[in-house]
Amino acid sequence: MSGAGVVVGVDLGGTKIQAVAIAAGDVVADAKLPTPTRGGAAIASAIADAVGAMGIGEVDRIGIGAPGVIDRAAGTIVKAPNLAIESSVPLARLVAQHVGIDAERVALDNDVNVATMAEHRRGAAAGAEDALCVFVGTGVGGGLVLGGELRRGARGLTGEIGHVVVRDGGRRCGCGGLGHLESYAGRRALEDEARRRHADGAPTKLVELAGDERMKSSVFAKAVAAGDELAIELLDEAAEALGAALASAVALVDLDLIVLGGGLADKLGEPFRAAVDDAVRRRLFVPDLPVRVVAATLGDHAGAIGATLLWA
Amino acid sequence: MSGAGVVVGVDLGGTKIQAVAIAAGDVVADAKLPTPTRGGAAIASAIADAVGAMGIGEVDRIGIGAPGVIDRAAGTIVKAPNLAIESSVPLARLVAQHVGIDAERVALDNDVNVATMAEHRRGAAAGAEDALCVFVGTGVGGGLVLGGELRRGARGLTGEIGHVVVRDGGRRCGCGGLGHLESYAGRRALEDEARRRHADGAPTKLVELAGDERMKSSVFAKAVAAGDELAIELLDEAAEALGAALASAVALVDLDLIVLGGGLADKLGEPFRAAVDDAVRRRLFVPDLPVRVVAATLGDHAGAIGATLLWA
Repeated sequence: MSGAGVVVGVDLGGTKIQAVAIAAGDVVADAKLPTPTRGGAAIASAIADAVGAMGIGEVDRIGIGAPGVIDRAAGTIVKAPNLAIESSVPLARLVAQHVGIDAERVALDNDVNVATMAEHRRGAAAGAEDALCVFVGTGVGGGLVLGGELRRGARGLTGEIGHVVVRDGGRRCGCGGLGHLESYAGRRALEDEARRRHADGAPTKLVELAGDERMKSSVFAKAVAAGDELAIELLDEAAEALGAALASAVALVDLDLIVLGGGLADKLGEPFRAAVDDAVRRRLFVPDLPVRVVAATLGDHAGAIGATLLWA
Repeated sequence: MSGAGVVVGVDLGGTKIQAVAIAAGDVVADAKLPTPTRGGAAIASAIADAVGAMGIGEVDRIGIGAPGVIDRAAGTIVKAPNLAIESSVPLARLVAQHVGIDAERVALDNDVNVATMAEHRRGAAAGAEDALCVFVGTGVGGGLVLGGELRRGARGLTGEIGHVVVRDGGRRCGCGGLGHLESYAGRRALEDEARRRHADGAPTKLVELAGDERMKSSVFAKAVAAGDELAIELLDEAAEALGAALASAVALVDLDLIVLGGGLADKLGEPFRAAVDDAVRRRLFVPDLPVRVVAATLGDHAGAIGATLLWA
């Protein structure tokens, strides 16, 4: 538990570092910096900069949520395909050195796990016995709360809803598998599919709106709002794929609450949530089973707030 | 816990009633009778006959596993599409009356739940922290053990792997859904598909072997052994569909052990287990994840033995 100073939570993302400071249960400061692409030492230094930028004085503890495979006990990022970082970087220790606190005061966990903890303890799933939190962003990740606790599993891989099969033998996923949810609903997969169909002659504003940049979630949201047919079709397919994977999750572990978050889902807002809710409902094997898909409430701060909960 | 007499376990199936008697942890007697098709009173009477047929003297407790939706607290079968039985039959009380013991000494639970408990406590998953037991028979059912305990879930629906989506929009399932595992791997669905393809001109021994009867699991096993192309193709598709659903389960709850049982899987034996194991392995999103598909070890007695565990 936190002592004199504040607890800092850091969400280390592929493009940005989001930090928040919590004192007496409230967010008292926050800061955002771009994620360096020059390895683990640069990332640790940038995290320390983000902590410093909040101007909060003495830091008591730091929690970090990072993408990829994490060794929590060792405080290392074993592997993180979405970060420009070496294998097995001892990130907790490096951050402790840069900030100037004991390494035992820095905890590291998977970003999706901490975001799930945040939504479960302080967000849309507060008080729920069981819940699946799904984060639809560049990829599709998830965390599973069963019996009031985050389930990790023997290998810490629980909740990988993005790699649930929705169409066996279907689209190629980033992991190499075929027909996984992520290949129909992740932002990167949607961008690839949009550019492919555009190259094949499908008219769309998506490519124009994105320009030379990656096709951001806001680009999809703008195109949908403007009635762009390809964007609407791709996001309909995404909602249906989410419906299939989430209905499978309901059949397997008997869930009544699904929290939908992540950059893309947040940007698309209520119409997308409603479409996913409807797509799940149409696929339930027991009709009228009370299953709700609700919007995540912590938004961009879920990961950082969740990281502080590593010390709660 | 059992007192002076023996504990009886009953597996109430769509076609047969299987009873076992356990004393000091060992099966000391067993009996099998056809399941009546004249309603709950006839079924309760037949269960009492099966108990009597074992010649075990005083019965201390009875556990019953039954298909469908069970109200455990009330001891009633709420709904059981595979039994000729009225809604909300108070089966525990009726059996107690027929056997002549207190109704509090008869426990009722779902058949797949008790079979899973049996494989977890005394069978192929003995000692496992986490395991999914999949029973491939007329339909496809399953039970999920997490953290050493059978998970039931808020509505008691956990483990319905037969209704996990493997091909969204695909084959119509008995429940009305599209592309569920059961519609590719359940015996009834395989029979329907075999008769359909046979009617369309596909040559096969399956229809001839089945004659005017239902196409039993043994018929599929014989046809495969005889090199029947349609039978081999259908069971290859079944193994692949199981691979997809089970890989999804691994992604969602991080499992390392899957127990494969049920009438069809038992009859098809080791080649089918190996095919399913391989189909799962080819679909794991993390290569070389140690996940094993092992054969159930209690066979036909899993349900009845599991029913006695309601008193363990």
